[in-house]
Amino acid sequence: MERRKFIGAAGLAGILATGMAPAVQAGQSIRWRLASRFPKIQDIPHSGIEAFIRMVKEISGGKFEILLQEAEEQTASAGVLDSVQNGNVECGHTSAVYNISKDDVFALDGAIPFGLNARQMTAWMQQGNGLTLLREFYGNFGIINFPMGNTGAQMGGWYRKPVKSLADLKGLRMRITGLGSRVFERIGGKPSNLPSGEIVKAFERGNIDAAEWVGPYDDSKLGLQKVSKHYAYPGWWEGGSQFSLYVNQRAYDALTEENQAILEAATTVAHRDIQAQYDAKNPLALKELLAGKVKLMPLPATVLDAAYQAAQDLYAELSGKNPQWRKIYGSYAAFLRNQGWNWGYGELGFGNYMHERQQKAIATQQSELSRKKSAPAGRR
Amino acid sequence: MERRKFIGAAGLAGILATGMAPAVQAGQSIRWRLASRFPKIQDIPHSGIEAFIRMVKEISGGKFEILLQEAEEQTASAGVLDSVQNGNVECGHTSAVYNISKDDVFALDGAIPFGLNARQMTAWMQQGNGLTLLREFYGNFGIINFPMGNTGAQMGGWYRKPVKSLADLKGLRMRITGLGSRVFERIGGKPSNLPSGEIVKAFERGNIDAAEWVGPYDDSKLGLQKVSKHYAYPGWWEGGSQFSLYVNQRAYDALTEENQAILEAATTVAHRDIQAQYDAKNPLALKELLAGKVKLMPLPATVLDAAYQAAQDLYAELSGKNPQWRKIYGSYAAFLRNQGWNWGYGELGFGNYMHERQQKAIATQQSELSRKKSAPAGRR
Repeated sequence: MERRKFIGAAGLAGILATGMAPAVQAGQSIRWRLASRFPKIQDIPHSGIEAFIRMVKEISGGKFEILLQEAEEQTASAGVLDSVQNGNVECGHTSAVYNISKDDVFALDGAIPFGLNARQMTAWMQQGNGLTLLREFYGNFGIINFPMGNTGAQMGGWYRKPVKSLADLKGLRMRITGLGSRVFERIGGKPSNLPSGEIVKAFERGNIDAAEWVGPYDDSKLGLQKVSKHYAYPGWWEGGSQFSLYVNQRAYDALTEENQAILEAATTVAHRDIQAQYDAKNPLALKELLAGKVKLMPLPATVLDAAYQAAQDLYAELSGKNPQWRKIYGSYAAFLRNQGWNWGYGELGFGNYMHERQQKAIATQQSELSRKKSAPAGRR
Repeated sequence: MERRKFIGAAGLAGILATGMAPAVQAGQSIRWRLASRFPKIQDIPHSGIEAFIRMVKEISGGKFEILLQEAEEQTASAGVLDSVQNGNVECGHTSAVYNISKDDVFALDGAIPFGLNARQMTAWMQQGNGLTLLREFYGNFGIINFPMGNTGAQMGGWYRKPVKSLADLKGLRMRITGLGSRVFERIGGKPSNLPSGEIVKAFERGNIDAAEWVGPYDDSKLGLQKVSKHYAYPGWWEGGSQFSLYVNQRAYDALTEENQAILEAATTVAHRDIQAQYDAKNPLALKELLAGKVKLMPLPATVLDAAYQAAQDLYAELSGKNPQWRKIYGSYAAFLRNQGWNWGYGELGFGNYMHERQQKAIATQQSELSRKKSAPAGRR
């Protein structure tokens, strides 16, 4: 209760400090602060923030400026949520998954195991009931949320030893975040939630046996290939992990309708750009990883099946005890069920054929390469 | 030559008519006309246009208004390209694929057989060199292009009889557009390019044996399920078909930088919304089609392989005779080759597993349904 009062007061103070009363706003310029949850090494969300800031500035003719506060200035894991709620900053860029210690519902704004992929998530948010329901939920925190980025399907993590069966996960100490960590525990693993900067060290020191972070581009920047050679897929816990811009509701309400529309449009540009960057950079990163000593490892069906079942059990339990989860997950799950009707034919039919051709092309290249290599050797 | 001169004059007249000299623009309102290539029955691109128009209006505080001219007012297939080039309208929404009779390069802005999927296309446009190269190309037409929508992977068309082998395509009369029609011809088919409104009639009258349009939602609105029961996948000719907003370059240059940024942002919102609508509506449409008499038909590998090879041959020929194709396709093809490195693992690995679960869920539902149905019947 006390905390609530404090938040309210701080929020108001934050708004007054930036001079955003509507009357003042019309002629004068607006300056907002943006807190980022992402470490600097994660340069894709960072350049998405830059695209967002640039777009807001360009459209407003420089009248609406947003200043980035770096992640290092943020303290705790849920720092962005608190900062925006308290009005310490007007807005913040984060993954909702980082907030599940406060409420499991946050995961539905980021990613849940065996959930929607990136395009499906955007469809649920914009054309299903997703954004409406999640905005109701964020209303409890004095925040209005805008989707701003998605990683696409993530990889299934790095492992010290190959995973050949469910038994190999028994007692396995893995760095894994979000609801995936709960599911991982239910199928026998020992999850831990290390900050990204500590993952490689923990691997080296033998404190963890496995770790997931994002995908090929981010993972190789972090250096996971230096401590592990077994790179698994698919990342069943994040089939498409959405990032969000949180905006303090009072700061938002103080904006003109034009500036509110600018936020909607500029976050959409950043949403597109972050996804496009992951899609452009992940393939090159994976190609490079596989040219080194890294080996791809499909997760066994027994592991996927056990995780799938554990995830469904978890969702049923959450629906039983958390009314907001029941309501929002109900919409999410219905949307996901329907997705099966089209995705599997047009999209996967095309994708699988293209993948097959790609595999053939790689095999041809490699056999030509080895023929060229072996020919001179034979002559010696 | 004469035509060029005429275009220049009409373009200028168009601009003067809308009163868009920069000096006038600062204080006064702007009114643009938008021509749509899409028939009214295709309500998804239409609502994308509405989202675009609304966003431009909201951000500009009503000072930048765009009026839609319906497709029925457009005459020929390349009508939007001509209208925008001539300055008869300031902008137009279309699929570049409709313009390939003028230059094959247009297909690279829409879709080519065995090409990039929707997300990959956006990645190439924004983070590869796609948008830059295509804008150079559109410069020849006095147009600046903005991606505005994508259908996602399309279906593989409707057939009077099942396609079991490549031989079944021999002499098959099919309505098919874009470069897919050229590839279809090379593998033995007889393509025709009927307007959407004539497809069903042509099927009924026996003038065609097969037809492709878009995907489950658009196809069922057109009524293709009334004349054909065999619905094939995947649509190898359009793995993700992009729509574009064409803007007359002179009209664009006359805008303030703020208004130019508004166009970039608002087209991005519409790009997202059109894809999201297809992704939300296609599954429900396919579910309904399959609940009727429609049967899904995977295209045989021999057909896909022959079409794939014919497409590569076509691209090689075009590269030999069209320098702009060679340049832009070179960038496109390199981007596509790299995509194979990541898409096939994280994205497809996740997608295929989810599809498998969906298939199991449907099988369970159906067996429960038939058990319920058969029980009372047995008691009679």
